[in-house]
Amino acid sequence: MQKLMKARVHITLKNGVLDPQGKAIENALGGLGFDGISEVRQGKYIEIVLENVSPAAAQASVESMCEKLLANTVIENYEIDLEA
Amino acid sequence: MQKLMKARVHITLKNGVLDPQGKAIENALGGLGFDGISEVRQGKYIEIVLENVSPAAAQASVESMCEKLLANTVIENYEIDLEA
Repeated sequence: MQKLMKARVHITLKNGVLDPQGKAIENALGGLGFDGISEVRQGKYIEIVLENVSPAAAQASVESMCEKLLANTVIENYEIDLEA
Repeated sequence: MQKLMKARVHITLKNGVLDPQGKAIENALGGLGFDGISEVRQGKYIEIVLENVSPAAAQASVESMCEKLLANTVIENYEIDLEA
C-alpha cells in the first residue's frame, strides 16, 4: 500500500524585513478603491506530496528541504503543516 | 477601539494547470538527494490586515480583492481564512 502525505509549507518574510511585493499589492489595492487596509505581506506557499514516509520522517525531511532550498533562513521563516 | 482582522489568502493553480515552478523545485530537491517526492506545487500566500471591519464585510472585501487583483481566476483558485 502506498501512503501519501501532504506537507503544506508557508514561507514568510521575518518581521522587520521590508516586503516591497506586499507594499506594491497594498498600493494597487488602494488604487482600486479598497480602503481600510492596514498591511499586506506576501509569502510563498508550497505543497509537497511525499510517498511512503512516516509523519516523523516527513516532518524531518521537509524541515531539511526548507533549510537547504526552500527558505532563505536569514530573512524568511517557514512553517510546516502535515496532513495524511 | 480599532479592530484589526487578518485575512490569510492562498492562491493556487487549478488542477490540470502546468506548474513549471513546482516542477523546478521538485527537480532541485531530487538533485539534492531528497527522494520519495511525488509532487510539488507552488502557490502564493498573502496576508492582509484590515481595520475596522466586520467579519462578513472583510470576507466580501477580500473576495473582491482576489477576483479583481490577486488571483487570475482563469487558472488559479483562491482560499480565504479570516482571523480576528
